[in-house]
Amino acid sequence: MKPDLDLVEERLLSAVRVDYPIVEKMLRDIVEGGGKRLRPILLLLAARAFSGNRDTAITAAAGVELLHTASLIHDDSIDRAALRRGTPTLNSEFSSGAVILIGDYLFAQSAILAAATGHPRVVMIFATSLAEICDGQLRETLEAHELGQTRESYERRIYGKTAALFAGAAEMGAVIGGAPEDSVRELRGFGADLGMAFQVVDDILDLREGTETIGKPAGNDLRQGVVTIPVMLYAASLPEGDETRRTIESIIAGEETSDDVVDGIVEKIRASDALPRAEEVAASYIRSARRRLEVVPDAETRRYLEDMLELAVIRTS
Amino acid sequence: MKPDLDLVEERLLSAVRVDYPIVEKMLRDIVEGGGKRLRPILLLLAARAFSGNRDTAITAAAGVELLHTASLIHDDSIDRAALRRGTPTLNSEFSSGAVILIGDYLFAQSAILAAATGHPRVVMIFATSLAEICDGQLRETLEAHELGQTRESYERRIYGKTAALFAGAAEMGAVIGGAPEDSVRELRGFGADLGMAFQVVDDILDLREGTETIGKPAGNDLRQGVVTIPVMLYAASLPEGDETRRTIESIIAGEETSDDVVDGIVEKIRASDALPRAEEVAASYIRSARRRLEVVPDAETRRYLEDMLELAVIRTS
Repeated sequence: MKPDLDLVEERLLSAVRVDYPIVEKMLRDIVEGGGKRLRPILLLLAARAFSGNRDTAITAAAGVELLHTASLIHDDSIDRAALRRGTPTLNSEFSSGAVILIGDYLFAQSAILAAATGHPRVVMIFATSLAEICDGQLRETLEAHELGQTRESYERRIYGKTAALFAGAAEMGAVIGGAPEDSVRELRGFGADLGMAFQVVDDILDLREGTETIGKPAGNDLRQGVVTIPVMLYAASLPEGDETRRTIESIIAGEETSDDVVDGIVEKIRASDALPRAEEVAASYIRSARRRLEVVPDAETRRYLEDMLELAVIRTS
Repeated sequence: MKPDLDLVEERLLSAVRVDYPIVEKMLRDIVEGGGKRLRPILLLLAARAFSGNRDTAITAAAGVELLHTASLIHDDSIDRAALRRGTPTLNSEFSSGAVILIGDYLFAQSAILAAATGHPRVVMIFATSLAEICDGQLRETLEAHELGQTRESYERRIYGKTAALFAGAAEMGAVIGGAPEDSVRELRGFGADLGMAFQVVDDILDLREGTETIGKPAGNDLRQGVVTIPVMLYAASLPEGDETRRTIESIIAGEETSDDVVDGIVEKIRASDALPRAEEVAASYIRSARRRLEVVPDAETRRYLEDMLELAVIRTS
């Protein structure tokens, strides 16, 4: 895997080679500082699970990671975030207009990488994943702020926000690897389950961990008015008209912004059974994902994919 | 052409079918109110100039128009424009974050249309055009505000901003039409020349016409600090250290914002030979474009393409 991932890095760095030294410097920093490369790893493993065209898989893996990076840049621009993973975002250096365009430019570069696979079906999965990501983010912007939202609405939102690109990466890998159709379907499902578990765990960590481990205060989503599953489960356990429930509603509506009040709610959620129940939700996605791995013939690759499931759950916790 | 364009419209409308009634309504208005469809017409004609696969050309034409629409939405978001073509932009209804995401969503839908052609080369031209558009817009944001910029810098900027997608549309059409390689090259060049002429004429109209005809005050680019070719030609005719030149510099730098001062400069440019000289620049692109049409075998299609050249020059003027 290591040499393949090194080639992915190389391809990422050539994609961000632009004429503006200051933009190029920031893009290099973003790409080089960029996370755990879960999506390209997933794509490469899904391709290797079958015969795999190594070079095509590397190109697609770089495309997927760049798409993810572009979407983070637009996210940060929307949230006006100054830091990501402890590093200054583009927002600290450029006007919001320039940041939007830099994100668009990376979308374009990621599309060029997808096109470079020369594989119409891979390009279609790529474009569809992008549409799903945008749909998820639009849902987060337009309808995340309702405490009484259905579980289905939450799932659809986190599917778009996180699981869609995991699903797309696994499917692209399987297609490039020449997997039979039912295996392509199962690997796509594996990616979707992994992504769902990943986001649920993120939502749990947001409430359980503090600034030291995740770089932002506990309850950050809540402060931003975004309803996550532990908050939904906790609120659903409160009686109709309960005062704590009304407080949560006013935090989500942006009416109540006092840190003390939010901290108090975070404490109450931690003391309830909402976090263990949310963990059970994540665990059930992980179980579903593990079952799907039966279609992977190669034992070593299967083990690596199982390791990804472990990684999704055992993170900063 | 009419039935093909109707099918392009249908495909555009299905691409903007989303779950949010309010977003869908705005997107429909944008798509339906949308301009002259020059880019899809160009693509359809370039395909018809040779054998052409009609259905593939229609799909690609819808993709190109949607890409153009998405890029206008991000443009308006960056400029925080409240109106476009006299119609309220998304900015008047949604948060800037939602507008960025709606633009991204349309990029995704346009990429899905490109992918639906099933034609790897068309997808690559599409993705490359998007990268060129972003490059042009980044140049406008980062370096348009220098009066002493070279002609090359201006050309590169308007190439990205406008000509790249005309070039891409013509090239996609020619490729879909199965044109021989040298004809693909000439048709791409035709699109680029047409786009360059189109933007130069836009830059002239910005100075020559007022609110009645183009919906914004004369000299709007100048007010925004964007240097266009008539301004460059006029400034270059002034002696070093000239006071009018210094005034233009301070308008571009955003230091001088008085409407009276800007109007005075617009008057001076109109009274000079800068507009006729800029017209000659546009005319030379048109001549180059016309010569390239020699490769088009079908006389009727050639005539339609020549009509597009006329349209580019004889607009609101």
